[in-house]
Amino acid sequence: MEANVADAAEAERTQVKVDLGARSYDIKIGRGVMDAAGAEIAAVLPGARLAVVVDETVAKLHQKAFSESLNAAGLEHTVLTVPSGESSKCFREFERLCDEVLAARLERGDGIVALGGGVVGDLTGFVASAVRRGMSFVQVPTTLLAQVDSSVGGKTGINARHGKNLIGAFHQPALVLADTAILDTLPIRDFRAGYAEVAKYGLLGDEPFFRWLEANWKAVFAGGPERDQAVARSCQAKADVVAADELEAGRRALLNLGHTFGHALEAAVSYETERVVHGEGVSIGMMLAHEFSEKLQLIDEVTVARVQKHLTDVGLPVSLKDVPGQLPPAETFMDIIAQDKKVSRGALTFILTRGVGEAFVEKGVDPALVSDFLKEKLET
Amino acid sequence: MEANVADAAEAERTQVKVDLGARSYDIKIGRGVMDAAGAEIAAVLPGARLAVVVDETVAKLHQKAFSESLNAAGLEHTVLTVPSGESSKCFREFERLCDEVLAARLERGDGIVALGGGVVGDLTGFVASAVRRGMSFVQVPTTLLAQVDSSVGGKTGINARHGKNLIGAFHQPALVLADTAILDTLPIRDFRAGYAEVAKYGLLGDEPFFRWLEANWKAVFAGGPERDQAVARSCQAKADVVAADELEAGRRALLNLGHTFGHALEAAVSYETERVVHGEGVSIGMMLAHEFSEKLQLIDEVTVARVQKHLTDVGLPVSLKDVPGQLPPAETFMDIIAQDKKVSRGALTFILTRGVGEAFVEKGVDPALVSDFLKEKLET
Repeated sequence: MEANVADAAEAERTQVKVDLGARSYDIKIGRGVMDAAGAEIAAVLPGARLAVVVDETVAKLHQKAFSESLNAAGLEHTVLTVPSGESSKCFREFERLCDEVLAARLERGDGIVALGGGVVGDLTGFVASAVRRGMSFVQVPTTLLAQVDSSVGGKTGINARHGKNLIGAFHQPALVLADTAILDTLPIRDFRAGYAEVAKYGLLGDEPFFRWLEANWKAVFAGGPERDQAVARSCQAKADVVAADELEAGRRALLNLGHTFGHALEAAVSYETERVVHGEGVSIGMMLAHEFSEKLQLIDEVTVARVQKHLTDVGLPVSLKDVPGQLPPAETFMDIIAQDKKVSRGALTFILTRGVGEAFVEKGVDPALVSDFLKEKLET
Repeated sequence: MEANVADAAEAERTQVKVDLGARSYDIKIGRGVMDAAGAEIAAVLPGARLAVVVDETVAKLHQKAFSESLNAAGLEHTVLTVPSGESSKCFREFERLCDEVLAARLERGDGIVALGGGVVGDLTGFVASAVRRGMSFVQVPTTLLAQVDSSVGGKTGINARHGKNLIGAFHQPALVLADTAILDTLPIRDFRAGYAEVAKYGLLGDEPFFRWLEANWKAVFAGGPERDQAVARSCQAKADVVAADELEAGRRALLNLGHTFGHALEAAVSYETERVVHGEGVSIGMMLAHEFSEKLQLIDEVTVARVQKHLTDVGLPVSLKDVPGQLPPAETFMDIIAQDKKVSRGALTFILTRGVGEAFVEKGVDPALVSDFLKEKLET
């Protein structure tokens, strides 16, 4: 009987390999993969001692089961809790966690596990990159956003006074466990926000996937096998781009579709998540990228309308007007964009598109055009 | 006439290439190479804007000339000063410099220059690794120690409460400029401390170089062409090891000859530099490594005496008894060694030797043997 149950569980799993030579690793996706976390981690880090970093919210829901799974696999571990929310991605938490990992006497062959959403993953990854100049790192993302985006690709980091994610490292995990059943308890707003990144993969380079999402998004939200498929296809899309361009020299910039506008919007509301969370910023940013592409006569209004319909269908905001409260003037947005790290020597880099699935990197965008476009969007 | 002067200057320069594939870079060594810093940096980072990090002491001596050289090459730059001394290798300075680099609006293709000794190089390199997840980095080491050791190999970092260099990154520079004339103004104690690392390269793998040093050390101290040769041969030795093992998986550990004991000693005196500076710790540590190797019957007393004579000749300390003030008991040393990052899963890793130039990595050293050895050394 047990064999059958195990087989069934195995059958439900999907695996995506991120191919980076000696630093290759697997993303294991499916309902319940977290229950086997101990065995999975022991397989990639045999004999390691662990520090598990978790935020307060996730700790309440999942810490106990997670620790039991580690104990069952004989993995000695220390649990380090961080406050929930973006404000934990700061120098102070970075320092505190580095100190605590050292206080736990973890050695170079030991590992650090991030159990949580993007904030915990980014912060913990940077800690893992820096302690002893690099320790093994495992991601157990508990939000859709983290499963399809931040846990894949090795970008880690914290925020600075001058902007988000401006301090960090490229540090690849040894393993990612994406348990799609965990998403059942995710607030709908957070699920939608993560879905914006899922839709992004279709929009940037995979029209058939976007079409599939238009037909199947309700099942993805409901938690059927379609959810696993959507997560796996998103991870695969990101993994392919990352494998081709690990350090973001070129093609990887495509993943920033919607992000330059999105980040600027998040900064413009001082990262007040009551007004805009990251995925919502990406949704609005993707709409702006399409509208800007239309203004540059790269796509027509039919394409813009198609994108807008799908994002609206799933309940995502699609316009700066959807953001509650007053927004700053276009000049403030331009200032933020100029400080964004996707800028190179004064010329603005944007991800534009020639159609659904046909995004491209444009490095020589005239700031005046962007400024005029934003003024229109903020006025109307 | 000018061509002749330039030729003469060119003739005096030695160049060592650190071969790391796409991340390869040159170390340019010689009297006066800093005068051409602007042109050299412009050649590797054309059009870059720079942040120059310098400590207060070096700023007084060299900042003006350095800035003029950058200006002459048309390199726009911001100067960021840090307090002199090891205490600058801390989280607070790391955060402050990251913020200041961002405030200066440096972009991803821009560069960060470390002008100073090992402290400035290690700290600045970590900042360069982290801001925007990696900016270009140039080292202009102004101490012998930094020229032959810390500026080569890409190890960067800061100190933690639990020990030195426990937080950092591997981040290779794009260029290293080692001006050997600058060392004329270095205090003799600092020159000697750096010389300990020079001697180390002979001891760990190059008996002919150690023999050459025994014959030529006075000229190295005096500043003749022998100094350039000693710096170049040291850089080459380190570059060869680093090229073979960039991330310290194996052979690179040889460079830690004398460092496990040395670091423990530095920590045991709470990094009070009036008592022990790093190079002095390395000198005593190298002696202890040889004496411990003798205790393990790997070398004879003649070899130990030969090493001791040379280190004593140049004026370096060779025994724990040479450290002013009282030292803690062996247990404290063992505790520090256990927390050292060269430890792997409880077994102690030491660099031992079978003779001058024949050091090797021993991963399975019994802690009890080390403890007994240290007790002897602390008592006698």
